[in-house]
Amino acid sequence: MILKYQFGHVLPTGAVYCPEAVAKTRVLKRGSAAQIPHFTMLPDGQLFYRLGDEDVVYGLGEQARGINKRGWHYESLNTDDPNQNEGRTALYGAHNFLLIDGAERFGIFLDTPEKVEYDIGYTNYDELVVKPPKDYDLYVLEGESDLEILKLLRKLTGPSYLPPKWAFGFGQSRWGYKSARDVRKIVKKYRELQMPIDMVYMDIDYMEDYKSFTVDAEKFPKFKKFNEEMAAEGIRLIPIIDAGIKIQPGYPVYDEGTEKGYFCTKADGTPFVLGVWPGRCVFPDVLNPRAAVWFGDQYKALTDAGVRGFWNDMNEPSIFYTEDRLKEAFPRVAAYEDQDPGAVTFFEMRDVMGRLSNDPADYKAFYHQIGKKRVRHDKVHNIYGQKLTEAAAEGLKRAVPEERTLLFSRSSSIGLHRESGIWFGDNISWFSHILMNLKSAVNANMAGFLYSGADVAGFVGDATPDLAMRWLELGIFLPLLRNHSSRYTREQEFFRFGMEADFRNLLKLRYALIPYLYSEFMKAALSDGLFVRPLGFMYPEDARARRVEDQAFIGECVMIAPVYEQNATGRYVYVPEPMRLFRMRSAEDYDTEVLQKGEYFIEAALNEVLVFVPKGKALPLAKAEGVRSVRDLKPGFERVLKYGETAVSYEFYEDDGLSREAGPDHVRKLKL
Amino acid sequence: MILKYQFGHVLPTGAVYCPEAVAKTRVLKRGSAAQIPHFTMLPDGQLFYRLGDEDVVYGLGEQARGINKRGWHYESLNTDDPNQNEGRTALYGAHNFLLIDGAERFGIFLDTPEKVEYDIGYTNYDELVVKPPKDYDLYVLEGESDLEILKLLRKLTGPSYLPPKWAFGFGQSRWGYKSARDVRKIVKKYRELQMPIDMVYMDIDYMEDYKSFTVDAEKFPKFKKFNEEMAAEGIRLIPIIDAGIKIQPGYPVYDEGTEKGYFCTKADGTPFVLGVWPGRCVFPDVLNPRAAVWFGDQYKALTDAGVRGFWNDMNEPSIFYTEDRLKEAFPRVAAYEDQDPGAVTFFEMRDVMGRLSNDPADYKAFYHQIGKKRVRHDKVHNIYGQKLTEAAAEGLKRAVPEERTLLFSRSSSIGLHRESGIWFGDNISWFSHILMNLKSAVNANMAGFLYSGADVAGFVGDATPDLAMRWLELGIFLPLLRNHSSRYTREQEFFRFGMEADFRNLLKLRYALIPYLYSEFMKAALSDGLFVRPLGFMYPEDARARRVEDQAFIGECVMIAPVYEQNATGRYVYVPEPMRLFRMRSAEDYDTEVLQKGEYFIEAALNEVLVFVPKGKALPLAKAEGVRSVRDLKPGFERVLKYGETAVSYEFYEDDGLSREAGPDHVRKLKL
Repeated sequence: MILKYQFGHVLPTGAVYCPEAVAKTRVLKRGSAAQIPHFTMLPDGQLFYRLGDEDVVYGLGEQARGINKRGWHYESLNTDDPNQNEGRTALYGAHNFLLIDGAERFGIFLDTPEKVEYDIGYTNYDELVVKPPKDYDLYVLEGESDLEILKLLRKLTGPSYLPPKWAFGFGQSRWGYKSARDVRKIVKKYRELQMPIDMVYMDIDYMEDYKSFTVDAEKFPKFKKFNEEMAAEGIRLIPIIDAGIKIQPGYPVYDEGTEKGYFCTKADGTPFVLGVWPGRCVFPDVLNPRAAVWFGDQYKALTDAGVRGFWNDMNEPSIFYTEDRLKEAFPRVAAYEDQDPGAVTFFEMRDVMGRLSNDPADYKAFYHQIGKKRVRHDKVHNIYGQKLTEAAAEGLKRAVPEERTLLFSRSSSIGLHRESGIWFGDNISWFSHILMNLKSAVNANMAGFLYSGADVAGFVGDATPDLAMRWLELGIFLPLLRNHSSRYTREQEFFRFGMEADFRNLLKLRYALIPYLYSEFMKAALSDGLFVRPLGFMYPEDARARRVEDQAFIGECVMIAPVYEQNATGRYVYVPEPMRLFRMRSAEDYDTEVLQKGEYFIEAALNEVLVFVPKGKALPLAKAEGVRSVRDLKPGFERVLKYGETAVSYEFYEDDGLSREAGPDHVRKLKL
Repeated sequence: MILKYQFGHVLPTGAVYCPEAVAKTRVLKRGSAAQIPHFTMLPDGQLFYRLGDEDVVYGLGEQARGINKRGWHYESLNTDDPNQNEGRTALYGAHNFLLIDGAERFGIFLDTPEKVEYDIGYTNYDELVVKPPKDYDLYVLEGESDLEILKLLRKLTGPSYLPPKWAFGFGQSRWGYKSARDVRKIVKKYRELQMPIDMVYMDIDYMEDYKSFTVDAEKFPKFKKFNEEMAAEGIRLIPIIDAGIKIQPGYPVYDEGTEKGYFCTKADGTPFVLGVWPGRCVFPDVLNPRAAVWFGDQYKALTDAGVRGFWNDMNEPSIFYTEDRLKEAFPRVAAYEDQDPGAVTFFEMRDVMGRLSNDPADYKAFYHQIGKKRVRHDKVHNIYGQKLTEAAAEGLKRAVPEERTLLFSRSSSIGLHRESGIWFGDNISWFSHILMNLKSAVNANMAGFLYSGADVAGFVGDATPDLAMRWLELGIFLPLLRNHSSRYTREQEFFRFGMEADFRNLLKLRYALIPYLYSEFMKAALSDGLFVRPLGFMYPEDARARRVEDQAFIGECVMIAPVYEQNATGRYVYVPEPMRLFRMRSAEDYDTEVLQKGEYFIEAALNEVLVFVPKGKALPLAKAEGVRSVRDLKPGFERVLKYGETAVSYEFYEDDGLSREAGPDHVRKLKL
């Protein structure tokens, strides 16, 4: 059951897809004595909940820390901060839901485009406090199980985005591929080494002066032809699109947007000028529906060249500096020149320039045109990324109506999950970020972003051979499998580290898994379920399972337990029911044993992947030999990993994975 | 056996204490075909070793990453970088030894004051490469066991520093105690709540304008009397001493040092002026023996007021900026003002000020006077912190000849372990840093720094109630137990979080442990052994034990396994031989069970500490009831935790813990 409580008048965010799902609506006054289930509303409007020792708090989607969010404070405030660690309170997405599982079991969803704060046992160990803005809609979700509550959330906010099947292939990326020649070299190397690959991502260097929707004709001459050449190789090119539009008369997007009044303005109506990669830029006002259509139509420049996939970046929106504050900063720095710089004044001075980026004050300095209203950005900050990527999705539907396209975004809020995936932004080449990747996958799935993933082997920082391999051993199970790294870091394509046979085996195992992964993904998306699931969802009565943060179910049939500690020769695993362990060096080469319910230290050499199949389940593997890209995969399976000899009933999802048509009618029952 | 290989002419570092321990010395040419045991010397002088899968590489003391150093590259280059994480290659100390344990077993120690680089399976998974400077002494240590090899290292470089017994008490610190009133309030609160405490640390605010060896007479009026007042309460005040000396005519340390020529100079002989906390400063040239004596004598200003403990900070030495480069920076920033700041130029401009601190170029811009030689700083960088703290130690011996004093340093190199402890610098209030604390303790012990510890609950960032408690559960076992935090962070004294009974029980448990900790510490120090030991040292034949990075032995009788994951209700533990587990809520309240060798998931509620005692060992606990400070501890034990009923022979170290006299004659055999 879904109950709705309205506080003030929230600007429509588009998060709610099915308002009819709400059983009852009440209009409440902030801080009144009104009864809200589970919570006490404090006089200042904050929502208070007393946590019991047994309570697990799930939720918040893309956020720092664990699957269980207890013990920290968080903000929903879309933020471009590449320094992802335990100290962060906000990341790229705003996913305002919580699921409390303990003495009581319920979910909440706050529909608002503004910042929300959460104190989940940070100030006081046993107190959960939600600090909403003045205007918001609160939805209370009551269900019998965690999964049922999340299904209610999805019913309310709509079904998840469906990527094309080829989006389950492997994609290579680097901020550093500067030309068609660079891309060709990467593809050639993967092909030579018989490491399957489907996508090469194009980071900002492909553009002319970082101008969105342009391709540098010198570095990528005859782009359409190049795209065809790659397509013939089985490779999709996936360009990045940045939010900021370069101020450059003669650049059609800038000229047209200016002429039509489609860019964000300051209070005085003049353009809001900020700096990002291209230098001085303006932001497309994607909250203005007409501007959104216009922005979505820009993707046609690239779809016409054959492109079928995009990643939208910098759409928190990220601001390196604003023109106004940069102007003020120069004299402020100069004023320190004649002072004896004590340490305090020195740090102050350094911060004048050092803190220009993503300054909260700047997000109060520009406006959107929503219908007849001018709305200050900070009032709608958290849906900017969503609106931009929704505009893209709509544009792609118009440009390529028959085909599913690949689309994922850095910034997001709930609602965007209907139109796009997400990636987890600028992570780091650290072992601890392998585990963070797993937790993020679970958390993003709960928010509806089933198609999601982290940059495998880490974006910032230098990868090591063992890091790349251990991370890939997790990545092969997650929908978005992309190796991506930043310029100035060590090159980390999977052929850079030696041990090529091992890397090849892992990539081939990924392709052998694709029919299963795709099938489970589609079933999860079409049933409002989860593709990646924490153990607590599978074994709600099992107190141990509810606390496991480093294992997960991938689909219904496979539990994974990636190794995420350097130099470890294995790891501890909680086996919550009898399972068969497959210790896999490749799709063909593995050993296996049956494990009863219990705690284990399980050996896993550097090139070994641990796969657990419960009794009555089966993991079908396709034939990956000779497969270079997803399109080479043949129907049928080469091998079935299961526990026991008896046939297992499996619902296989089969379709072409290309057309926008998709439904439960593609599910076929198999005996495996 | 110790073999010595001389390359060029290394400046004496003072690391070697017992040159007679060397069995054989050879003078070698860099890059020659000469045979060095175990290694291949490459033509460029690098030392190459092929790693086998089974090899564990211990060493490097205070460094990032694990106990097993494989899979990363490191620099010995003393660095003030508060951002401790997996990506770091250098921290505050330079501890140039490795211990390889696998197909072969041996140690190396490089004696040099210059930077050394190590690639331990970073570039290639199975290759270890040491990149030494031109001039260095290489010691190869051959022994039958890991412990024996480390004992050789200690024999060569000398026995470890002995702190006074009261230094095993608990100390509270915060960068933020601004006056005697602040300190009194903290002490009062701990006393009221009956949480034992021995020390309050005084961070930089106690000084007059951050001038070392001064006390602000307004904030700390009648300091000697205040110190007496605290002493009567059982509290020692432990002031910080910073390396940089403020340029301020009339400040006697500055005037006298200038007059005598005891400060570092630039190439042209004029003072090298740099900025740290006091603003414009000079560095005492502690490599000049006469300047060192003079610097050490400055501590008398505070010992005369009754102070018996110090922490030396900023002695890498840290440089916020140099006067010369800051002057150049202003016009460089201003020059960007008229450019259209593209992102690249914007970041460049920001970095002009942002990268002034600890710039490698600045370390080449000043000189030391060593005998008749002028030596550029970068040639001796890694021993600056050592020499400064050795100067302090010598000064303290002159000022307080009868009493042991507490002294620990941020920067260090091997050799300083004879005179001082270390703390691990600016860590962060993260759960992952609890585990880092344990690893650092193991690694520092190997380098000889038995008296060491991290800032419990984390220096930078905001602590949470559960973080503080979990961290304290580790901290009670380590010699230096200090809760320290930075200004602008959440206050984190152990009475700030509620759950006072639990925090009190943990602090009392610490005091109950002190006779054991002190005894094991003294025995380890006097026998050139280890106080904190990795499992691989205890069970060298046990392949599992060799890989455990999150458990350790504290002394000979106790294995610990701290919980370092948030919201965990327990943790996995490898029990390498039959042991009795004590799950302790306090020194009196615990449950216990016998565990056979094997792998376990062991429950540990938030307020529970896991202690493991092997068969034949015993952990004696003192009576902590009513104990406010170490001096209140009565002789004898209240309780003995052991496995089995039969009496266990235990060597107890007893002395007053105050006098500089200490020796094996204080060991008494007890039947426990």
